[in-house]
Parts: sequence; structure tokens; C-alpha cells
Amino acid sequence: MKYCFGIDIGGTTIKCGFFTVEGNLLEKWEIPTRILENGKYIFSDICETINKKLQEKGIDKSEVIGVGCGIPGPVEKDGHVSLITNLGLKDINPEKVLTELVKLPVKAGNDANVAALGEQWVGGGKGYSDLVMVTLGTGIGWGVIINGKILAGAHGAAGECGHMKVRDNEPETCGCGNKGCLEQYCSANGIVKEAIRKLKKVDTPSRLRELETVTCSKIFDYMKENDALATEIVDEWAQELAKGLAHVSSVVDPEAFIIGGGVSKAGQIVCDYLLKYYQPLAFHGNRGCKIELAKLGNDAGIYGAAKMVIE
Amino acid sequence: MKYCFGIDIGGTTIKCGFFTVEGNLLEKWEIPTRILENGKYIFSDICETINKKLQEKGIDKSEVIGVGCGIPGPVEKDGHVSLITNLGLKDINPEKVLTELVKLPVKAGNDANVAALGEQWVGGGKGYSDLVMVTLGTGIGWGVIINGKILAGAHGAAGECGHMKVRDNEPETCGCGNKGCLEQYCSANGIVKEAIRKLKKVDTPSRLRELETVTCSKIFDYMKENDALATEIVDEWAQELAKGLAHVSSVVDPEAFIIGGGVSKAGQIVCDYLLKYYQPLAFHGNRGCKIELAKLGNDAGIYGAAKMVIE
Repeated sequence: MKYCFGIDIGGTTIKCGFFTVEGNLLEKWEIPTRILENGKYIFSDICETINKKLQEKGIDKSEVIGVGCGIPGPVEKDGHVSLITNLGLKDINPEKVLTELVKLPVKAGNDANVAALGEQWVGGGKGYSDLVMVTLGTGIGWGVIINGKILAGAHGAAGECGHMKVRDNEPETCGCGNKGCLEQYCSANGIVKEAIRKLKKVDTPSRLRELETVTCSKIFDYMKENDALATEIVDEWAQELAKGLAHVSSVVDPEAFIIGGGVSKAGQIVCDYLLKYYQPLAFHGNRGCKIELAKLGNDAGIYGAAKMVIE
Repeated sequence: MKYCFGIDIGGTTIKCGFFTVEGNLLEKWEIPTRILENGKYIFSDICETINKKLQEKGIDKSEVIGVGCGIPGPVEKDGHVSLITNLGLKDINPEKVLTELVKLPVKAGNDANVAALGEQWVGGGKGYSDLVMVTLGTGIGWGVIINGKILAGAHGAAGECGHMKVRDNEPETCGCGNKGCLEQYCSANGIVKEAIRKLKKVDTPSRLRELETVTCSKIFDYMKENDALATEIVDEWAQELAKGLAHVSSVVDPEAFIIGGGVSKAGQIVCDYLLKYYQPLAFHGNRGCKIELAKLGNDAGIYGAAKMVIE
């Protein structure tokens, strides 16, 4: 039996998975992310938890083919990472650093790309070799998989489609520094912001007005209960995001979009809405593309990380 | 010595190139495209011209590694072509048909993608492994090269970025059937159409008003001579196309855009204009991308076709 580890490094916790190379998740656990002193403990902590797990299971390192790592920032072709502010990492090659510590082959990738690979391997994208995963959370994470492999980009910045400029007169600045990015309107946070703008602008009655805090899940709940304003908000969101999906299709022509993240918890209706607007907007050659829900939730990252070291 | 053929099938002529596998073009010629009877003569004509050339040179087929073919329409993963209206082709696998005739290995690809591969091999994109070629002619042809290979897409419709919807209130219909496609404003034809709209809309004096027929090259000529209206037209064109380039970068993060086609004949100023607007529009991780001129002109197709059968 051969094994591997899939590690997903986040800003507060590091998710760890111990897998067989066939894709069976044998065990998963988390350790806290220690951001102190430019993140110097992150990789030694990962090394320690891996060694401990192998000792606990009585498994020798010769039976482990490697460690995959998802990292919340761009990873360049040679594995180099320039800057990941929220981990305090700067000018580091996580593959080299971790390999030296853990004495196993290590592969690193951008976390959104890695999650896409996980979904493609055993999740909502199983059976597709070309797909784009769209994770709708605080921001929008995108991962492009072509022929079963991550498309990382020349500067490690492929799949940053949330930063397509889609509006010209946005007063607020996006996290990336530009204004009018798709992510400002279509992430979970974006939907809520747009809803609040709309609530101020029009006086259509809506149960949303009764809420102390408008949340994305409430907007989708009320839409399902036929609240007119909530429906309008979801409708406009779907139109905007569908245009983004059509843009992406015109570049890489995937078999499917896999929709994950908080917004996708509203269920199949999310895909139905997106497909309704995607179809007429897309170039005719791209209309065969499916829109489906992700299946692995927060585990997509550890699955994809493990997949990186297999083959 | 090993040889190969690069064939570029167009609506009126078929361009043919005879190459060494090192990339030396030994001879190029053209034959007319016979569109009669659902294009049934296209492949037999290609076979005949190849056989004739080998006979003329006294070269045996054992010394030829294959024939690459650029085709003006989408080529699916298995080589299948559904429909190419302007050649009269329908439900055909050019690779199979031509292989049977010519008794050599054949590879087919979409012509814009194939041209991109040619430029990447020995043209303006030499030295880059990830690039996007943009051919600004009647329409806009796009070819995406990742790790030195064509990204063809799940339905053979990757690199159709000219059909991104960029305007909402366009009255005219694009060749693809949608309205408001990037190509409607940024191809050579698009620039001219936009210029004519502008000439009608404003009364700024301009030498363009003296022309019987406004052409793309005249617009660029007059811009270089500081005609205010021509400058404004080029400026607006560059802004619109740069936004499209930034969209494409956010998906595949190339090292460079290679600009070809009729519009690129205006020279380096085309790249300078595009870069000026690309830089602030692009996501920060994509700003390292270069914008450079294509070098192979109409030969890009035969070079790229040849390259498909090498390796």
C-alpha cells in the first residue's frame, strides 16, 4: 500500500489529510496556523504533524510517495512564492523548505487551483478532464483544470478571473487594488453589498428589510420563498456572474464549471440560474458546457493537494 | 534528414509548406481551395500536391514524419469537425480522411490556434512557452499556447475570446449570432465601423472625412500624423481591446500576447497603446505579461501546422 498527504494551508488552520494513492481519505485533522515570525513555524509544524501521524500508524516513509500543499497565494512555476501577506510568507520556496524538513517529495500549488483538482479527481467534477472551479466565498476562487492538470499560469496567476473589470463606475476599491472587479459583485460578500445598495436605492417591500444583518444565505432563502426583491438580487447576480463564466469559456472552453463555496449551499437553483443566463451569453461553441455543484466542501483542498503528488 | 508538411486551409487558397523538422521552410506554395460538392476535393487536392512535391524532390515518404493541417473552424479533441460553412465541410474527421489518402500521419487544428503555435515556435513568440496570439483582421483570431502546446478546449472552441460580450446595447449582430462581441469593435473591420459611427456622431474636423473609404490603415496613418479624431479612435480601440486582454490574462496568465493580422502592420505603436491600457486594467499578478508583434505574417499557419506533427 502506498500513501500520501494532502495539506491545505489557510490563514487560521492547516487542514491535513492522509490518503491512499487510490484517493481514499484515511484520516483528516487540523492544526492551527502559527503566523509568528514570518510564518517560520508553518512548515516545521506541518513536518511535525506528518511525522507524528506516520509514527502513530506505524507506517514507514518509504511507503509515502509525497506531500501536496495548497497555499493561499500565487505559486510560480518553479515553486517560488513572492508574498503571502496573511501568512507572513515572503520570498520562499515552500516545496524546497518542506522537502528538506520532512524528507519527502513536496508539491505546492495555489489553494483555489488545488481545490479544483480535488473536485476534478473525486468530487463534483469527476469524469471531466477540462473544468473550471468557481468558489464563491468572501472572494471568488477560480481554478482551471486542463487535461486533468492545474493551469497555474506563467506568473502563478492564472484563474484570477474574479478580477476581471466588469463595471466602470465603481467607487469602492477591490482587495486587489482595482475597481469594478467581478468579485466585488458576485462573491458572497459581493451579493450582500449589492443587496444593501439595492435596499437603499429602491423602496420595494421585502423581508430582507426586517433583518438586522443581510446575509447571502438569507437572500437565497427569501428568493426561494418568492420575495420579489431577493429574487431580483439573485437574478442580477446570476446575470453578472454568467457573463464572467461566458468570458472564461471563450478562453479555455471547459466541459463544466463546478460551483463551490458558501453561495453554493443554496443548492441546485444556483446552477440553474447561472445556466439560464450563461447559455445565451456564451459563444455557440461553448454552450455545451455544464454548470454543476461542487461536492467536497472544505475537503476539496486536501484532496487536490494529495492528487498533485500522485502520478 | 526528416521532413514534414504544414498546410493552412483557407476559404480561397490552401497554403502549403515543406519543412525540415528543425523548422526550416524549404519551399512554400499555394493551391486554390475547391469548395465544390461539400469540399470533397479539398483533401484529395492536398494529397495530390504533397505527392507531387515529394516526387519532384525525389524524397521518399519514409523520410516524412507527417502532415499538419490548420482548419478554419473548431476541431474537436478526437479530430472531428462538425461544420465549416465556408469550406462546405460537415461531420468530417480531416485527420482520418487525409491520412487514408496520403498514407502519412496527419494532425489537424483550428487555424488561429495553429498560427499561434507557429509564432511560438519560430516567430514573435519564440522563447515563450505560454502565450496568446491575437490576429486582428476581418474578425479577431485567438490562439492560446500553454507549455508550448495548443489549448484547444473541450469542444474545440477555446480561444474564441473575440466573442466575449463587452457592450450591452449593440444594435448589430456579430457573425456568431450574439450582439456586443469584442470582435465587433476591435477587429480591423470593427475599428472601421466604430470610426464611421464616430465620424457621424461628432463634428471634430479630421482628414478621415476626406476619404472615400475609411480603412484601418488610414486611421493608424493619420493617428501617427496627429489627427485628433484618428487618435481618439485608436485610443478608444486600445482601451476596449486592452480590457479584453486583461480578461484573458486573468484566466490563463500568459507570458506574452503576440499581436498579428492587418492591424499589426501599423507597427510597435499598436503594442505600446495596448500595454498602456493593459497595465492598470490587469490583475497585479498578470502585469508582467508582454505585448509584442507577430513576425511570420501569413506564414504563421504553415509553420504552426508543421510544428503540430513534430515531437
